[in-house]
Amino acid sequence: MKLDAETSASGDDTETAGARQMADALRMLAIDAVERANSGHPGMPLGMAEIAVALWSRHLKHNPADPQWADRDRFVLSNGHGSMLLYALLHLTGYDLPLDELKRFRQLHSRTPGHPEVGVTPGVETTTGPLGQGLANAVGMALAEALLAREFNRPGHTIVDHRTYVFVGDGCLMEGISHEAASLAGTLRLNKLAVLYDDNGISIDGAVEGWFADDTPARFEAYGWHVQRGVDGHDVDAVERALARAKDAERPALICCRTVIGRGSPAKAGTHDVHGAPLGEHEVAATRRALDWPYPPFVVPTGVRNAWDARSRGAAAQADWTARFDAYRTQYPDEAAEFERRMRGALPAQWRDAVRATVHDANARAQSIATRKASQLTLDAYAQVLPELLGGSADLTGSNLTAWSGAADVQADGAGVSGGNYVHYGVREFGMSAMLNGIALHRGFVPFGGTFLTFSDYARNAVRMAALMKTRSIFVYTHDSIGLGEDGPTHQPIEHAASLRLIPGLDVWRPCDAVETAHAWAAAIGRGGPTCLLLSRHNLPFAARDDAQIEAITRGGYVLRDWLDGALRRVVRRVVLIATGSEVALALDAIDLLATAGIAARVVSMPSTSVFERQPRDWRDAVLPPDVPRVAVEAGVTSGWRQYVGLDGGVVGIDTFGESAPAAQLAAHLNLTAQAVADAARRVVLRVD
Amino acid sequence: MKLDAETSASGDDTETAGARQMADALRMLAIDAVERANSGHPGMPLGMAEIAVALWSRHLKHNPADPQWADRDRFVLSNGHGSMLLYALLHLTGYDLPLDELKRFRQLHSRTPGHPEVGVTPGVETTTGPLGQGLANAVGMALAEALLAREFNRPGHTIVDHRTYVFVGDGCLMEGISHEAASLAGTLRLNKLAVLYDDNGISIDGAVEGWFADDTPARFEAYGWHVQRGVDGHDVDAVERALARAKDAERPALICCRTVIGRGSPAKAGTHDVHGAPLGEHEVAATRRALDWPYPPFVVPTGVRNAWDARSRGAAAQADWTARFDAYRTQYPDEAAEFERRMRGALPAQWRDAVRATVHDANARAQSIATRKASQLTLDAYAQVLPELLGGSADLTGSNLTAWSGAADVQADGAGVSGGNYVHYGVREFGMSAMLNGIALHRGFVPFGGTFLTFSDYARNAVRMAALMKTRSIFVYTHDSIGLGEDGPTHQPIEHAASLRLIPGLDVWRPCDAVETAHAWAAAIGRGGPTCLLLSRHNLPFAARDDAQIEAITRGGYVLRDWLDGALRRVVRRVVLIATGSEVALALDAIDLLATAGIAARVVSMPSTSVFERQPRDWRDAVLPPDVPRVAVEAGVTSGWRQYVGLDGGVVGIDTFGESAPAAQLAAHLNLTAQAVADAARRVVLRVD
Repeated sequence: MKLDAETSASGDDTETAGARQMADALRMLAIDAVERANSGHPGMPLGMAEIAVALWSRHLKHNPADPQWADRDRFVLSNGHGSMLLYALLHLTGYDLPLDELKRFRQLHSRTPGHPEVGVTPGVETTTGPLGQGLANAVGMALAEALLAREFNRPGHTIVDHRTYVFVGDGCLMEGISHEAASLAGTLRLNKLAVLYDDNGISIDGAVEGWFADDTPARFEAYGWHVQRGVDGHDVDAVERALARAKDAERPALICCRTVIGRGSPAKAGTHDVHGAPLGEHEVAATRRALDWPYPPFVVPTGVRNAWDARSRGAAAQADWTARFDAYRTQYPDEAAEFERRMRGALPAQWRDAVRATVHDANARAQSIATRKASQLTLDAYAQVLPELLGGSADLTGSNLTAWSGAADVQADGAGVSGGNYVHYGVREFGMSAMLNGIALHRGFVPFGGTFLTFSDYARNAVRMAALMKTRSIFVYTHDSIGLGEDGPTHQPIEHAASLRLIPGLDVWRPCDAVETAHAWAAAIGRGGPTCLLLSRHNLPFAARDDAQIEAITRGGYVLRDWLDGALRRVVRRVVLIATGSEVALALDAIDLLATAGIAARVVSMPSTSVFERQPRDWRDAVLPPDVPRVAVEAGVTSGWRQYVGLDGGVVGIDTFGESAPAAQLAAHLNLTAQAVADAARRVVLRVD
Repeated sequence: MKLDAETSASGDDTETAGARQMADALRMLAIDAVERANSGHPGMPLGMAEIAVALWSRHLKHNPADPQWADRDRFVLSNGHGSMLLYALLHLTGYDLPLDELKRFRQLHSRTPGHPEVGVTPGVETTTGPLGQGLANAVGMALAEALLAREFNRPGHTIVDHRTYVFVGDGCLMEGISHEAASLAGTLRLNKLAVLYDDNGISIDGAVEGWFADDTPARFEAYGWHVQRGVDGHDVDAVERALARAKDAERPALICCRTVIGRGSPAKAGTHDVHGAPLGEHEVAATRRALDWPYPPFVVPTGVRNAWDARSRGAAAQADWTARFDAYRTQYPDEAAEFERRMRGALPAQWRDAVRATVHDANARAQSIATRKASQLTLDAYAQVLPELLGGSADLTGSNLTAWSGAADVQADGAGVSGGNYVHYGVREFGMSAMLNGIALHRGFVPFGGTFLTFSDYARNAVRMAALMKTRSIFVYTHDSIGLGEDGPTHQPIEHAASLRLIPGLDVWRPCDAVETAHAWAAAIGRGGPTCLLLSRHNLPFAARDDAQIEAITRGGYVLRDWLDGALRRVVRRVVLIATGSEVALALDAIDLLATAGIAARVVSMPSTSVFERQPRDWRDAVLPPDVPRVAVEAGVTSGWRQYVGLDGGVVGIDTFGESAPAAQLAAHLNLTAQAVADAARRVVLRVD
């Protein structure tokens, strides 16, 4: 193989030759895998190969043998379509990703799916592909690192000290979420975050100048970032130096790397043809020749493998950290144990007792309050045993009631971030949500963030990503119905509860009072996946329950008021009323209206349909006896409830947009009343009979 | 009343005194209305009153007597919570918005809802409240203006020549969509767009410096905007001059106005307390005194009313335009008629014939092609009679197949925008979608934009806003199922079809072949509201139909294959198979599988559930006879289909996330096969029997 030092200014030919071969190994693994799969994106791996060499072989702190090492640097491939670059890196540096997996790129149940997926591939920190979100995940990770460092480091004991690196392309930077995430990262001075921008001037439609003429460096300077312009992205040493400068910056760093997309492909480099389709057999061969890479597909010469192998360096780095952590443990045994617990994601020993006491207190207080207020009271209680709670709101703190009595603002503080446990995310719902995912992925915190339910729309794909990644992200959505009244249809969620319930793996809770709210929070904190909490703006009546009913809330659906058969002189008909949140009160009020008509109604409170669906069939059948007709009531679209009431049941809901009016008038106007529930039940019962 | 010239440098005391009183009239109407409603946002109207005076009394071209005048300037209140400012402006300048309506602020069925709603209040150009979207709507309006001007103006005849003005607050500028919209506006040099930024340093959580430290002027300069910094937002003359300078700019203009939120309220000005809650009786009185405004609530002295009255100025402006348009009509009668048709939103005379011919051709060609390809062929045909088609894609043109043979790129061209009918929106799904809404609201075009179905999530609230506003926005979503294969779960929509169907007023079409695709496009173009077109990446078999069936597609659901009772020796059982899009083929294939088991299956193609729901009951019952069991099949979440199959029917679908694998393998793995449909039908039929 020809050695080539022409891209080097250092004079160290051996080193440079190694770097070039290391880059070309990434290139060839990527294009051979894409070719074999006949599917994938070769352009980005070809274009970012040298940048990857500079970061992964000269800066990144990681240990391939332990992808969960707490103090590893985090790497995020925000332009996730370039997944083969990451797989090639993980394979070559020594992660448990054998060559056979690279050969099964994009095949069913391989560890090399089309886009990187956390949990599937060791060393993948987050699932990317939907553009821009990786960057926001990374901002969340960097924030988590900064806060953990503030909380756990001690003089002479720096046990949290890692960086977050991100690859982004033009697509990521066109997305609005890049603005939200970068603006907040700049404001909070997340100085251990470095973003490497693959500035190749090409996106799928062609040369970006026709639709993306930003001065991106100036834009990021406006966010308060440390920006390096015009770095030659094909000069490993130049990128290495830029990364070194970024480490010295007291602000988040953007390194703008000029690159050629598809570099190495003689016919397709610099064009959008190379972005998202295999090069083709002919062009792969031409690339092989152009790179002077004489090896067959998937063969990497030993010298290049050795140059890439990061196992001994990684083991040494982690061993050094472990020794330092042991010293920390000796001096600060409680902190060390707490840090380990937090990074495991385990809840504290006193957690169950705290839940029990909080639920008990809520029941004893028997308050008729808004569930957003009940949520705040719950946070007051749980936060006492959960230092890992990291709250926040997208500029609706006073409305969402997401700040508890012990909440302390996270702020910029000199060159970094202050301590604190509450983030003012600003009016950035999508950025906040993707940051929550990043914080959860980093570990060390249980993050939550609030906004109005209707604006869950702004963040919907981040909620979906939380479900796909199974992150413990908690989305607090208040103002959960037309009950907010005067703000009108733009602010009144109609389809949102039903719509969120459609996301696989997401738990949605819509509690009806303070007791259900306390349980809903406990479920969210205790689960290995995301949860949405849908909370009312207005006061909801307390519902009395016995101990078994209180416990039954954890089932997601349970009998809140059973048929009062004995109380009726002569019962001839039965109906089940299913309700959630604020409409449970309507169902309860309908009982008496129906009793006078000789109909006995059972009220099933169903705060979480997905949790209910996970119960054994005998529980579900006991709550919803198959032979009794049903009516569901919820202040939202009706169609989703057909899966519980069938074609013969009834649904009382709202299938139009709301309107601006005082809440009580609006409810009457939209026929969302106890009488409407009773009427629907009468119709259903009469039809069935 | 005391005259006060101290804010003026012009020396024209009378004029300035008038301006101050004009501003205070806005202030008092706003806070009195909020107080009366005991709900609303006084801070913004108090803070932007002088800016409103400068724009509305000295620059804005409008005619209160004709809010639909084609060449009016467009005004967008992107910070829509300040709605009372706009209502006060519309009332005082002479729109059909009497004082009684201001007194009914935020009341049921008033013309003054909590946030501005287009179609409810004359003079309101778009519905705002969800932050940032008004700005993107305005970018769409400005683009529509620029393209219409290019298309219709002739030498000596400038009939399209209006501006778009936007008020934005910190919230709008924190939202990611502000980045997407501003970046594209800068790239396209939309020089007749001017944005007035209410830079008051306060958002709901308090002083924004803790979460929004951007150098916003520098950020917009990075987008290529003309930026004016530090304009005194309480100096009417200064704002007036800034607006004049903006008119001379050859780029979109940002005018950063330093303001005090809640100005005029002695105790609350400059604090976030004034943002979103009534001042309270005491503070309203104090404000009245501080402003030296001795009039009772809702009383505006005649002099101030006269100063505000824009009717004669507006009538003169429109009369001037009408005279010029008449001259244009004389010289260019065809263009004039076409312009009027386009601005009415009427379709051309040959439209129905074009649809008929296109559908006929698609049927005659009988091609088995991807519906995204069928969509492109449809566009080729329809575009020939619809010069108002304005297409585009969020950087997926080659994947969405949204560019037809006559598509020409819209580009920056010197100081303005070139002609063209195809917009490369860049990777900006949300910005694109809100721009489509703005273009539709402006009138003159039928806009559509494409992305992958899974990324409809990024734009979801803009789709909702289209439905709320009833705009003719067309959202083209390709790669509509796991059929995209290797890209994996991030790119595979599972819950999206069901989720979009939940939005009130939105039509969702998921056609099964080229004929249904041609009809779906016709329905989208012909309706007064938004449509989503869900299109396959992969080829779908052509389905043979007779003429009645072809026509029946417009019903949203119809019988594609009826029970072949005669062909079976002995029919004992029947089942209805309901399918959409790519799964219609599975249902058709299941017919034979079921026939061997003695079950006769009818296949109902249901490309649009909402259109089907609008059919008379006898149509629906004829298609879905109430006494025959049903099975639905769709490559997505199953729960929504319970409204058609009930608890006893079957649904074949996907209730988990997808995976990265070749499409055929994936379908088998997820059990999305004809055999699975047949099995489900057998189970359903046996249970029922």
